[in-house]
Parts: sequence; structure tokens; C-alpha cells
Amino acid sequence: MTFEIVFDSAREFESLIATLEKFFDEAVFQVNMEGIQMRAIDPSRVVLVDLNLPEMLFSKYSVESEEAIAFDLKRFLKVLKLARSRDTLVLRKGGENFLEVGLLGDENTWFKLPLIDANTPEIEIPSLPWTVKAVVLAGALKRAVKAAKLVSDSIYFMATPEKLTFKAEGNDSEVRTVLTMEDPGLLDLEHKMTKAKSAYGVAYLEDILRSLADADEVIIRFGFDIPLLLKYMVRDAGEVSFLIAPRVEEGRS
Amino acid sequence: MTFEIVFDSAREFESLIATLEKFFDEAVFQVNMEGIQMRAIDPSRVVLVDLNLPEMLFSKYSVESEEAIAFDLKRFLKVLKLARSRDTLVLRKGGENFLEVGLLGDENTWFKLPLIDANTPEIEIPSLPWTVKAVVLAGALKRAVKAAKLVSDSIYFMATPEKLTFKAEGNDSEVRTVLTMEDPGLLDLEHKMTKAKSAYGVAYLEDILRSLADADEVIIRFGFDIPLLLKYMVRDAGEVSFLIAPRVEEGRS
Amino acid sequence: MTFEIVFDSAREFESLIATLEKFFDEAVFQVNMEGIQMRAIDPSRVVLVDLNLPEMLFSKYSVESEEAIAFDLKRFLKVLKLARSRDTLVLRKGGENFLEVGLLGDENTWFKLPLIDANTPEIEIPSLPWTVKAVVLAGALKRAVKAAKLVSDSIYFMATPEKLTFKAEGNDSEVRTVLTMEDPGLLDLEHKMTKAKSAYGVAYLEDILRSLADADEVIIRFGFDIPLLLKYMVRDAGEVSFLIAPRVEEGRS
Repeated sequence: MTFEIVFDSAREFESLIATLEKFFDEAVFQVNMEGIQMRAIDPSRVVLVDLNLPEMLFSKYSVESEEAIAFDLKRFLKVLKLARSRDTLVLRKGGENFLEVGLLGDENTWFKLPLIDANTPEIEIPSLPWTVKAVVLAGALKRAVKAAKLVSDSIYFMATPEKLTFKAEGNDSEVRTVLTMEDPGLLDLEHKMTKAKSAYGVAYLEDILRSLADADEVIIRFGFDIPLLLKYMVRDAGEVSFLIAPRVEEGRS
Repeated sequence: MTFEIVFDSAREFESLIATLEKFFDEAVFQVNMEGIQMRAIDPSRVVLVDLNLPEMLFSKYSVESEEAIAFDLKRFLKVLKLARSRDTLVLRKGGENFLEVGLLGDENTWFKLPLIDANTPEIEIPSLPWTVKAVVLAGALKRAVKAAKLVSDSIYFMATPEKLTFKAEGNDSEVRTVLTMEDPGLLDLEHKMTKAKSAYGVAYLEDILRSLADADEVIIRFGFDIPLLLKYMVRDAGEVSFLIAPRVEEGRS
Repeated sequence: MTFEIVFDSAREFESLIATLEKFFDEAVFQVNMEGIQMRAIDPSRVVLVDLNLPEMLFSKYSVESEEAIAFDLKRFLKVLKLARSRDTLVLRKGGENFLEVGLLGDENTWFKLPLIDANTPEIEIPSLPWTVKAVVLAGALKRAVKAAKLVSDSIYFMATPEKLTFKAEGNDSEVRTVLTMEDPGLLDLEHKMTKAKSAYGVAYLEDILRSLADADEVIIRFGFDIPLLLKYMVRDAGEVSFLIAPRVEEGRS
């Protein structure tokens, strides 16, 4: 046995993998003493995803030696979708080139998922001149994105010291969602006194936010025409971060 | 500002507009001191719709001068569909050729919807020799229409002093739904002692009834081969009426 | 009136007919003093269905003389799908060549369904050398079938004295669901000490199980490469049995 890892909610793991699967067909996971990590850039090269699940998140974490495993995310997701609400997830690897996936509950179901060649380029996460940091509820962000989508495939993130504004412009119409510190959807807003306005693709944001519950907290950082950093926690200790390239448009308002 | 009108449930307004959108791509609304009115005949010229929302239905009703505004119903409906259950709806018009639509709740979202040219022919509602008046629950009427649809695209409305019958005839089959005053779905039945039987298109009735809850009361009036008047209330003070042309068929039973 | 039969839950009858409709376009029902019976083999000749609804299941059972009636199951099902949760079902036949179907509840709706020619070959149910008998919850069986479906269109039923195993093999993957007497999904397991392993088509099992609730009990009997007998009760007195031919494959593990 090279590793045996147990996570107490197969359903919660499914929602994590469902998000990754929006961006990647396959993924390489680093399994080591510290936990499980994954970092990759999507084929369109717009989104960098960085996942870190420290070993303390797992109810059992037994890893003999560091290992990189790669597999088809769609197939893994289909297996996870069979999980019932109280099923435990077991990930196991022995000598064979399989990931054994166990859904343990009222029945015990075991899948053998074939591993594929792991190709792992080194990816650096750049540090960027973000001038805005905000903590928002996923529900508020989802609704702002949904409203923007009615008129455009781009959404502007804008901020002043008092408010966070999401704006989209269509040919003959316009949508604007405004959050202030009085609104339940905005939990924190830090703003350096410079112009903060960047546009991002609506579809990328939809894919990232889909698996979040309305009450989940999301940390966003942006500035003037620079990438958006969007981050949320997995049970206080794990982290999923997305770095999304901005859309730079001509003749913008 | 030429008007600012506030309705306390954006969701309820959505359901009204959803019904209109089944019949019209665009609509002209008369906004005046008394309230908001709309009257139009659908492109197939089978259904006349008459909507009247008196100013007392609104939590704020500030109108400077009478005005006719027209816009794309599909686009307006998409905006309203973003409303959450407790969102308030604001309709606002200033000097520009836009309707500003606000969904105010946990977030405040504002849409600018372009206005289009208002073309408003005068439409008279004819008075007809109706011999039956009945008050039915929308749920009972919906189910009668659904049953009829199994065998035909026409449904007969028939009445005797004791019962209201909905009948449809297929090639080799037949469906009949009967309501008497003992059934919870029939609240009132008035019948003048003459033959009452008319056929109407099932699809029109489906479109009209879709947005109603099963417990909503619907007033119907019909007679012998004449249009059906179908009416329901909006919060006791507003009214939506439909006048539906009958189908006159050969060799009917 | 040749018969009038009343069943107190139209919805429950619908779920029975929905299962039959997966296998047959039309069906012949024997209506006699004992009750209603149907026995038929599906067009692919893989599944034999045997239905027996004794007269005690019905709240009214008035049959003048034995009769075989046949009709289109799809049409009958569409009618039953209109039933509301507390509707009573009435099946009535008079002199005409119609089955009158009544859904009686808040409204009374009556359908006339045309009867077709009844063609009734005599079908014998073979007695087979089953070596395993198990009682399982439909939910556990459904999930085992769903898991198998991820990798194959065949599922192996296997048993040892201690456990019931459902296995499927794909090109490069494998799924295995195991039930022991400690699992809530396995209520009883009898096993004669011989090899018990047979493969069946996943799609047939899905069609059979679809209408069952997770908590419904299902009796299964199988052995080595022989048909599966799958049976469940209708209110303790009625029975629906399926005999499913095995898939005999080359080079199986």
C-alpha cells in the first residue's frame, strides 16, 4: 500500500472535484506527507488553479512516500456522484497502476480507476499589485455574475472605499450590482486609494462559483487591469485559489 | 424623474409578466395617475388581454405625467427572473429612453432596459351574451385542461345548472372532467337555462393558467359558441382578464 | 356492466403500469373472479413478467364473467399520470369496446380508452436450479446497478455464504458493491454451497427497479449462469415477478 487516505464526506469531495473538472480533463495530484496539492493552468490559459488540502483535513492520512498521481477527472467525478450524503470516501493506492476509490456507507462500493502518466510542469504563482481586497458571500457574487450575464460575457469589478460594484454593459442596456458594508453579502472591503477596475470573463466566474453554497465566504483581490485572485477555504484548513486573467478592452467606459 | 413606482414583491410581478410574455413579444403599458394598464390582442388574434394594476397595489407610486412606455417583454422577464423571494421591485424612468429596473434586497441590482416605440391602437372589449358564470380554483381548471390535452387540442366548456363539464374528444377516446358544487374546485356556478357549450384551444388555456397557484380563484364566463372570459385578481385590487375566441367546429357532438 | 374495479390509490397503480410499460407496448390482462393477472415475454425475449393482483387488493371488485382485455400501455399510463396523490382509480367495462378509467378525487375525471384485440399465448414459468436466495432493499440494489453502469452494461450477481457481491468490469476499470448481513440493505441471504455467479443486463434491471422506493423489499434468486428471478410484493398480497435471462460471456473472470 503506498497510500490510504480517508475523507469523511464523499459529497464534499465531489463538489471540489466538480469545480476542477470545469477547467481540466485530467489532473496531477501531489500526494505527500503534508497533504494533497494540485496546481495547473487551464487550456485557454486564462485560469490558474491552486489547490491545497493539508493532511489534517482527513480522518485517516497514511502516505508511505511522496507520489504524483494523475487520472481522468470526469471519470473520477462520475464515481463521486454516486456517493450518498453520509458516505465516507477512501482513496487507496497499492502496487498496481490504479486508484482505488471506496464509497463506504450503507453499502460498500469500490472502484478501480486507472492512473495515467503524470506530467507536472513547475508553475509559479505571481504576486500582483492588488489594490482591493474584499470578503464576499458566494451567493452575492453569484447573483452579480448572473445579472451581468444578461447583457454581456464580461463583468467589471470596481471598487471605491465605500462600495464594491459589479457592472456589465450590453449594446443598449446595462446592469450594475452594488454592495456596501451595510449589505449582508459584503463582509470586508479594503481599498488603496487608486483606481480599481478590471473586467473578467463571466463564464469562468460561473464555473468557479457553481459548487459554492450561498453562505460560503470568498476572498477576492483585484486592481486596475490585473488578474483577479479568488480564494475560498475547505473546512478552515484547505484552500482553493483561482487566478483569472483580466480582459483588456478598447474604448471602455 | 417622470415616474418611480415600487412593488413590494418582484417575484409576484415576474409571474404577471411571465403570463403576458406567452402572448406578446413587446407590450405597451399606460402609466398614469390611476395606475398601470395594458390591453392588447395576440398575433394569432385569438386572445385579448386586459391588465389593470391600480396605484393602490404599489408601495410607492409617484407619476409626474401620463406616459405610454413599451419594451421587450422577454428581456424584462429575464431581469425579473433574477429576483429573490424578498426582493422589492423598482420601476423608474427619467429623461432618458430607458426603463430602470431595480431589484432591491440583500444586494441592489439595477438594470437599464431600452424603451421602444409605443404603438397603441384603441381596443374595445365587447360585451357578450354570456349565460354561464363560474368561479373555479385554478388547480381544478389546470387539471381539466391537462386531461383534455391527452386526446385533443380543443376543450369543450359545458354547463348545466348543477355541473360544469370539461370535455375533449380524440379519434378513438374521450375525456370528461366534471365539477359540481360539492367539489372543492367549484366555488360558484350561475347558469341561465339555455344551452351552454363552447370549445377553446387547449394551448391558450395552458399559457394563461401556468403562472397561477392551484388555490387561486378564477372567474369564467361563457355560453354557446362565444368567447370565454377568464379573469383573476392581483391582490384583490388588480385584474387580469383574457377574452378567448371559441373554436367553431363541424359535426360536433 | 361486465366489471367495475376500484383501487384506492391511482398513484400506486401508475407505478405498477409504469414498470410494465418499460417492457411492453400493449398488454393483455386476465380479469376473473380471483383477480387481475398478466404474463408476457418482452420483445427482446430476455424478460418474462408475471403480475398477479388478487381481488382482495381492491376496495371494490365486481366482475360478472371472466374476460381478457388488452390496451395500449403508453396511453393508459398517460392517463394514470394525471392522478393526484389521493385520487381513487376506477376501471370499468360495459358493453362497448372501451375501458373506462376514472380518477376520482377533488375533481372526477373519466377517460374512455379503446380496447384492442387480446392475443394470449400460454406462457409457462420454468422452475430453475437457483442456489442463492436473498432479500435486499431496492435502494441498495439500485445503487449497485448504478455503480456497475459506470463501467459496463453487464452486472455480475455473485454470492458466498457471507456476502452478496455485484461486480462490473470495464476495459480498464472495475466496480464492486458488497453487501453483508451487517449492512442495512441485505435482509436475508441463503446460499447452497456451490458457485453462484451470473451476469445480467444493466438496462433491464434499471427498468425494473425504477418504480420501487429505496425501502421496498426485493427477493432475488440466482445461481450459476441461470436466469435471475426478481420479485416484489404489492401490498403484501399482490406479486410482480421478473425472470431475466443471463448473459453468458466468453473469457469471463
